[in-house]
Amino acid sequence: MFSRLAASHLDPFYIDVSTLDTDPLDPGTGYSSNEIRRFHSAEWNALASSGRGEKIDFMAAVAAEFICRLHREGQVHGIISAGGLQNTVLATSAMRRLPIGLPKVMVTTAATGPREFQLVTGNRDIIVVPSLSDLAGVNMFTRTTLDNACACLAGMLTLAENPGEGIRRGSRLSVGLTQMGVTNIAAVAAIRRLRELGFEPVGFHATGSGGPTMEECVEEGLLHGALDMTLHEIVSDVMETGYSVGAKGRLERLLAGDAPVLLAPGGLDFIDDWTDNFPVGLAGRRFVLHNSNLAHIKLTVEEARRVGRVIGGRIAGSHRGVDMLIPTGALRSEAEAGGKMHDPEVDKALVDAIIESAGPGLRTTLFEGDLNTEGFGTAAADLFARISGRTTCGGE
Amino acid sequence: MFSRLAASHLDPFYIDVSTLDTDPLDPGTGYSSNEIRRFHSAEWNALASSGRGEKIDFMAAVAAEFICRLHREGQVHGIISAGGLQNTVLATSAMRRLPIGLPKVMVTTAATGPREFQLVTGNRDIIVVPSLSDLAGVNMFTRTTLDNACACLAGMLTLAENPGEGIRRGSRLSVGLTQMGVTNIAAVAAIRRLRELGFEPVGFHATGSGGPTMEECVEEGLLHGALDMTLHEIVSDVMETGYSVGAKGRLERLLAGDAPVLLAPGGLDFIDDWTDNFPVGLAGRRFVLHNSNLAHIKLTVEEARRVGRVIGGRIAGSHRGVDMLIPTGALRSEAEAGGKMHDPEVDKALVDAIIESAGPGLRTTLFEGDLNTEGFGTAAADLFARISGRTTCGGE
Repeated sequence: MFSRLAASHLDPFYIDVSTLDTDPLDPGTGYSSNEIRRFHSAEWNALASSGRGEKIDFMAAVAAEFICRLHREGQVHGIISAGGLQNTVLATSAMRRLPIGLPKVMVTTAATGPREFQLVTGNRDIIVVPSLSDLAGVNMFTRTTLDNACACLAGMLTLAENPGEGIRRGSRLSVGLTQMGVTNIAAVAAIRRLRELGFEPVGFHATGSGGPTMEECVEEGLLHGALDMTLHEIVSDVMETGYSVGAKGRLERLLAGDAPVLLAPGGLDFIDDWTDNFPVGLAGRRFVLHNSNLAHIKLTVEEARRVGRVIGGRIAGSHRGVDMLIPTGALRSEAEAGGKMHDPEVDKALVDAIIESAGPGLRTTLFEGDLNTEGFGTAAADLFARISGRTTCGGE
Repeated sequence: MFSRLAASHLDPFYIDVSTLDTDPLDPGTGYSSNEIRRFHSAEWNALASSGRGEKIDFMAAVAAEFICRLHREGQVHGIISAGGLQNTVLATSAMRRLPIGLPKVMVTTAATGPREFQLVTGNRDIIVVPSLSDLAGVNMFTRTTLDNACACLAGMLTLAENPGEGIRRGSRLSVGLTQMGVTNIAAVAAIRRLRELGFEPVGFHATGSGGPTMEECVEEGLLHGALDMTLHEIVSDVMETGYSVGAKGRLERLLAGDAPVLLAPGGLDFIDDWTDNFPVGLAGRRFVLHNSNLAHIKLTVEEARRVGRVIGGRIAGSHRGVDMLIPTGALRSEAEAGGKMHDPEVDKALVDAIIESAGPGLRTTLFEGDLNTEGFGTAAADLFARISGRTTCGGE
């Protein structure tokens, strides 16, 4: 790989993340594992009798810190690694600390079957090159796989429009927006209106990783603010099941800073779960089938209250003011009057619980109608623009 | 994407796999969905009132056929697509029909969280570019993601050592070999010996997808033969649970042809499963923990017989002769005398069941000792070489 990258006029160097004591590399070719551990030798020595898992966790943390330092110093413009499952987890846990958009390539034997993406990508933009064969030794398979992987990295660093720069804010103020199928009409309208108003809207799928990614981007300043209108992931987090699990502590990072934020209770009235997985069963419940085995299941009044209290609690705990646009009607498609998911008692219980537990920090604005409509999306965009102006101008 | 690829001196064209009736494309820019369906219009019209799922399945099949034809005509050297979950499944089911090594890039919003790789890669070498944001519209996220993805494809087609050629057989006879951690000592020795003997060995991880991939490569002629010494996947297939599920009908494709094959019963005496997933529980069983929640569980005598009968049945059903190298000792590491997985009664029941149900097509050779040893690996390589010589020379 080293020679392939050099042949593409790149200047590669090794970062050896081995948990063994490896020999020093040839001068000028990179950093040995001992060099990477240099500032942590006492901790490393204390792990001498520990298991391989603990050593891997240690090396992952130390390597991540090392690589971040090199990146801050301007020495890293892209990163590539190759390995089996354990090496993949080690290498990508360092990679995912690098900025979004900076080229990251992982060649892995783990990209098959029921293995989960989060093991490899960690919900970051790590490009995954599956290796169909074991990676030890050079043969017709590994040669082609590694050649292609190196060419991906070289391509991104030499052929892309803005090579290796990562994502950058443009001249427009960027706004993250959470969306999913059942709030899509409103999201599309909000995006259109935000663009008309001079913003650069970026949509995130609120189904397990989009929400947290958006919050992280706001925290890092990559996004100017957030129209967090599909809070659905919080339902799976509270109920600990379903398609949209994975988003822990939603709203906490977003509300920790002072970026302009507008919330809306999109998709909070249901949980998406596989029909054979939903712990309490579907009997006696409203639901629609999203596909042959994934159901959208309406919450009960009691479940809705639980979800609402968690959201209100996070707003109260943030000690900042935050706005929420609340529809008088349904919180998603098919929950409107006549729809299969229609149950205004549940919707009301949810909204009431949010308001009661959020306390004085929550400013609510009512929208007359259903959430998943063009009207709601446009109104949300307009309100966000007012909030953003208020925030950036520093007063009301 | 079209313009980015063209800017890299490629000659891109669209293949529109939409399930809607789309407008014709600009002349010379590619194929509309109507053109792709042209030879199947009666079937397509019959689906008019069907659901979206059926239409997607239909388009996936038709698009795959269309793309394969273009590839046979020499018009396709690489492929790229972008979309959400459903578009990803549609596009990659066509991509996976293209040869291994031919550059395939899928930009997808589905590469996060607990989503499974098989949805996207289908166990093929499809390079996955995660999109952290929704892909609709051009913004700072989609611009960078799509720019990087196009640069990956362009890099593989212009910067790789053998651009866009796919995997090709070299001058050495290539041999697939199945391996996993518990047979690794033997596998490494076999690989070393095969290389000494002039072969090009390629290792595959026998944990759910490696075995089937190897069989497919033998069937397609990419591999000359197989030293299938780790048949472990068959245990998960028979018991319908465990880490190594996914390999359906192992041995059937491999033995359908007349490529040289040597089998060995590596890793057949245990199942790997999560401790909280194993249906009948761990009470009263021998097991070792592979990591904190994945256990290697020794089969019972009855389970071993079931597995053995399935293997023997597939050998008998193949109506060809096949060789198996059988150790007198353990079938994996830690099952040797004194090891935690030691239970020679189980090992014997398994081997006996294979031999009894395989019938006269199975030629067995005994190896005095344990399977996961250098001696076994070397002996297996030597025996494979004799079988290969016998097969390719056409006589004994």
